[in-house]
Order: sequence, then C-alpha cells, then structure tokens
Amino acid sequence: MYKEHLVSPGPTAVPPDALLAMAKPIYHHRTKRFDALFGEVSQKLKTIFSTTRDVFTLTSSGSGAMEAAVVNTINAGDKVITINGGKFGERWAKINKKYGAIVDEIVVPWGKSVDPMAVDAKLKADPSVVAVFVQHCETSTGAMHDVKALAAVTAKYNAILVVDAITALGVHECAMDAWGIDILLSGSQKALMIPPGLALIALSDKAWKRVEQCKTPVFYFDLRAAKKELEKKTTPWTPALTLVIGLNSVIDMMIAEGLPNVYARHANIAAATRKGCEALGLKVFPENPANGVTAALAPKGLSGKKIKSVMEEKYKVSIAGSQDVEKADIIRIGHIGYYDKSDIVLTLSSLEFALKDLGHSFTWGASLAAAQEVLYTGAPKV
Amino acid sequence: MYKEHLVSPGPTAVPPDALLAMAKPIYHHRTKRFDALFGEVSQKLKTIFSTTRDVFTLTSSGSGAMEAAVVNTINAGDKVITINGGKFGERWAKINKKYGAIVDEIVVPWGKSVDPMAVDAKLKADPSVVAVFVQHCETSTGAMHDVKALAAVTAKYNAILVVDAITALGVHECAMDAWGIDILLSGSQKALMIPPGLALIALSDKAWKRVEQCKTPVFYFDLRAAKKELEKKTTPWTPALTLVIGLNSVIDMMIAEGLPNVYARHANIAAATRKGCEALGLKVFPENPANGVTAALAPKGLSGKKIKSVMEEKYKVSIAGSQDVEKADIIRIGHIGYYDKSDIVLTLSSLEFALKDLGHSFTWGASLAAAQEVLYTGAPKV
Repeated sequence: MYKEHLVSPGPTAVPPDALLAMAKPIYHHRTKRFDALFGEVSQKLKTIFSTTRDVFTLTSSGSGAMEAAVVNTINAGDKVITINGGKFGERWAKINKKYGAIVDEIVVPWGKSVDPMAVDAKLKADPSVVAVFVQHCETSTGAMHDVKALAAVTAKYNAILVVDAITALGVHECAMDAWGIDILLSGSQKALMIPPGLALIALSDKAWKRVEQCKTPVFYFDLRAAKKELEKKTTPWTPALTLVIGLNSVIDMMIAEGLPNVYARHANIAAATRKGCEALGLKVFPENPANGVTAALAPKGLSGKKIKSVMEEKYKVSIAGSQDVEKADIIRIGHIGYYDKSDIVLTLSSLEFALKDLGHSFTWGASLAAAQEVLYTGAPKV
Repeated sequence: MYKEHLVSPGPTAVPPDALLAMAKPIYHHRTKRFDALFGEVSQKLKTIFSTTRDVFTLTSSGSGAMEAAVVNTINAGDKVITINGGKFGERWAKINKKYGAIVDEIVVPWGKSVDPMAVDAKLKADPSVVAVFVQHCETSTGAMHDVKALAAVTAKYNAILVVDAITALGVHECAMDAWGIDILLSGSQKALMIPPGLALIALSDKAWKRVEQCKTPVFYFDLRAAKKELEKKTTPWTPALTLVIGLNSVIDMMIAEGLPNVYARHANIAAATRKGCEALGLKVFPENPANGVTAALAPKGLSGKKIKSVMEEKYKVSIAGSQDVEKADIIRIGHIGYYDKSDIVLTLSSLEFALKDLGHSFTWGASLAAAQEVLYTGAPKV
C-alpha cells in the first residue's frame, strides 16, 4: 500500500480547505453571491500579481491566456520577438504565427536562459517590433528567464513585454508594476494550488493601448469584454464557478502565509531538491534553475522515462519526465504550491528506491542527508 | 507552511475513500439500506478477526468494549487475572474491581512482556479463576504480549482469555479461532483507519457460556441484546452510522490489500522506524516491540515531552508522548493503519529537525539512511 503523491510541475497538490470549499453545493453564477465572490477574488489577485491593474480570470487552461495575450494585442503583419528556450517558448511562436504575426524567434539552447542584451540589440535594430514574448520559468527545462532585466529593456522601446508566469507566479517574486511587465499571465493548477481550468491575465496601460488598436478577431478571449464585465464584478461567459471558489480559498492561504514567505519556502525546498538530486549523481539541468520545478539529468545509462515510470507505478510518486528526450533526458520534480519539506523528503526517498531498482549506485539516504541540511536552514526559528 | 501529519498510535490517518464515504448524505439506520450495510460489514469483520463467530460493532470507544468484556462475563466475587504491563493493562484491573471481581494482577515492568508460564502457574494453582485479561499490544509501552502462547495456556483451564487487541488487530496476525482466544476486541481509530467511535468484540463458545450465567447488571453493553439484533442485521441502540459506512470502506481496502500484506507492511515500516530511532541514539524501549507503535527512549538530557512538542508545534508532525514519564521517558511514533514508507521517512525527517533544534548531536539523514535500507527490503519486486 502506497499513498499517491503528485509532485509534477502541474497539476499540483490541492490544499484540503480548497477541496472542501469546492465540494460545497453549487450555486448560480448570475447572482449577487457570485459577484461578491468574484469581486473579492479579483481584488485579492492584484496582490498576487503585484499590480494595481485589473486581473482577469478566464475559464481556460494557461494556454488560453497565452492566446488571449496574442489575439488582443497583435495584428496580422505585426513584428514580434518570441523567446524559445523550450516547449513553452516554442508555443509563443506557434500562436503568433497562427494569427499572422511576423515572428523573430530567439532560440535559446535547452537549459539556458535568454540574454536580455540580445533582446535589446534586436529591439534597437528594429524598433517596429510590437511585442516580446517570454516565459518567466520555462517549465520544460526548469530554467528561469530574467524577466526583470527584460522588462527594463522593453521599457525603452515601443514593444510590450508579455510574460507567461504559469509556473513562476506565486513561486518567484514577479513585480508586474515595479518591473514594468506589460502582460502577465498564469494558470490555476500551479502555485495557485487548485485544479486546472482557470487562467489569469493582467495588462499594463502600454498593453491596453495595443488592445485598443488591435483588429484581430476575438470572441471568447476578448479582454475588452472581460474588462467591461469585471466592472460589474462578473465575467462575459460562464465561469468555472467551483474553481473560483477554490481560488478564493488558496489566495487567502497565500496572503496569510505572506508572499515573501511563500517565495522563501519555494526557494528552500527547491534548493534541497537540487542538492538531493546532485547527491545521487543527477546533475541539475538548467543553468539558472527555477524554484517551482527541478529538472535533473538522468544518470549515465539510465533513462529519465524509466526512473519516472518506476517512481510512479511502483512507488506512486508522480514526477514529470522530459518533453523532448533528444534535447534533454531529464526528470522533473515539481514543488510548486502546496508542498512542504516533508514532500521533498518523501519524493527523494522514492527516487532512491527507484534508482536502486534500476541498479544505480549510491549510499542509502544520500539525497536525504543533503536535503535535510538545506531544509533545516529554511525552518523558522524555535 | 507545514502540512499536518498525524502519526500517533490512534487516532490514525483516515484514507480519502473512507472520508468521502463518510461525507455522503446521512440516512436513517432503521432501514433495509442500513441492515444490508451492517450485515455486510459484520460478515467481513469475521475475516479481520480470523473467526467464524459473530463480531459485534458497538458505538463506543475501545474502553467500552473492554467494559463489555467484563460486565457480560464476570460476576461479583469472581476471581480473575489481569496482566498489567502498562496503562492499558492497569485498566483491566480497574474495570474488574469496579464490578466486584477479585483481581490477581500480574504486574510486568514497563517495556517487558508477560511470561505465559507465570500465568500457567497461577491458573494451575487456582483453577477457580474464571478469566485472564491481557493486551495483545500494550500501547503505552509499545510491547507485545504473546497472546498465542497465553491462549494455549488458558485452553487447559476453565478460564477464558480476554484480549484487548485495540492496537494489534490489523497489524499483527491474531488468529482468534485457531489460537483459541475467547474474547477479542478492538476499536475503530487504529488499524481500522476510521475516526474514534466504534468498538468491535467477538466471543468464543467458551466465552458465551460465561455470558449465559453472568448476572452483572448490563444495559448499553449487553452482548445478548447485540446478538439478538445482529441476527436481524442491526443493533439494539442507534449506531454511529457514518462510522459504519467508513468501516465498510476500510475493510474492503484491507481485504483488497490482503491481510498477510497488511501485516507485512506494518512489520516493514515498524522495523524501519526502530532502525531510524536507533540511528539517532533513541533506544527502542520494549523488549518485544509491536508493529503498530514504536516507543523509543529520549536521548540522555532530552525529554520526550519536549521532542514531541517541537515536532508537533514547529513541524506539524504529531507523535505521542509517554503516559507515565516516571516509568519511561519515551516518545511513541504511530504507524498503524493507513501509513506507508513515505510516512516513516517524513516522520523521521521531522524527528531529526526537532532533535537538531534541541541540540542533540547526529549526522543529517542518519535515521533516513537506516530506514531507507529497511524500507527497500519491504518493497514489492519490480
């Protein structure tokens, strides 16, 4: 008998209070009751986004918010820069091309982060570029891009900076207003700790100016419609009601813990996970690793896919594998949202069992000793 | 943010399926629907008890079943032997004295187990003794008594053997019929994995003969009334309906896992817990340790109470302390029922954090390395 543990970079574990809140009897969304809830959630989301701007809650996956960012701001024939450091960066180019944008894709090798100066050079060379699209965390490689530096770059030009922070929001500081991010978006099933189905997006004034002149046809993801309805504390289309109820619960949890503490917790458990992997001979893959997901290379002679499948099938601990084995034979351990020190310890413990099954050589508890030392430094003082 | 983990010897963790079953809308117990459920549960309980006898489900704590065992079989003036190797053994004498029995108490030092030959000698010396009362596991010390040997002893005399298996049933083999146990009882909040509120009790023919001649006044715990109603698949008094629903769910889980596998899982995680404690310098307290709870002595200079409170308050992992610090300054880690390898790893990890806070000297991960090695031997083959 093994209890199931989900330690993927999304969907992530859902806190019991949110599960209970979402299990309550459903009610109608065209009611004062929903308006009051939605108004409150939308207000509190500004804290999570570090913004005074409206945060729109869309009923879609994060990819829906990515599409919304494009179709509300980009006209066919517009020039855009997309940063492709992995599967999700690749998606920015795909969406933009679908709607007729002229895409200048900066391909960054897997595991590396984009050089903000390279973006600066491109924008300087062609000031007609209207937008730069990037991930805060490239989930497929576990690498962070330096969004703060990129925002400082785009601020000098006409281009807006569009940031997919799906696996970074609520993990790393991401100061939308202070840094000057123009579009910031995320999803519900990551650090926001609820099941998939909601996406969140906020826009700066600079971004809204692009929305106002945008002629790309848009219906479901029309942010002008969303803005109009948010003034009335509601949504243009039927919202995923129970997920909004869950979102309210988790945001309260995050605000009660305190965002700096939330970031510090992720930093601590991520550092412990990295140390644990390295103690077993699994090299951390990205140069600038994110704190919501640890990508580590399978040891020589072992495949990440096999490690993942043994952990999942035999030990019931579900991690993620590589999204492109050719580019990086990695395993990806998620520690984003509702995860604590114990989750890291039990995940590394199951990783040890799986590696032992696969004939990998190490000393029992090696990853745990390495992790314990780091985890302890992150504990509150007695 | 720390998730809460309950690793006490009871109440114990409740499986999600049981929680969900118990959260369903309530219905009335004087219905065919309840009769069908209760008949099914009562039937399946025979497997758990390794008996063909009726198993009665009482709405009470385990202490209620202890009282039921006494008041249905013992008359004022009857001679009984009680075995007191800790807090729960002590209770057998208290209940018997309350109802006028003449109690010959065998006091066993804390952490030791009774010598079955000592019981044999007493029964031989005085064949008028009508009953011997013992725990299968003395939860306060974590020690096992050799119930199989005791049953072989009592079988030779008129006395019945009454076994409190509250923290042993579903953990250790306890073959009621095959070994010749006369009364076997347990509670719901241990290896049966549901919240407190139900007690279970079964009687051999030899025990029923004592019931038939018993004149002690009894109403709520009248097993003759329970027997009469069980023939109609119901209970004399209002049952704790939702707990019966939960019980049905967990029994299915246990039968699906297979009782030998359930016992083997407990044996493995208990052995790992003992090795883990010893690796940190915490000596395992009982000579013959049980597999549902590990009692370990606090290291020199530290108090078990302090270790427990740091683990609970700072790391949110709730273990149990000593029930009599004068007799043994121990901590008690529960691993009874819905617990797996990961639970042991995270508990030992939090024990390490607490010991470090308290200035105890050890190498990070020492308990985890020791536990990993044992836990791995208990894993199913790939």
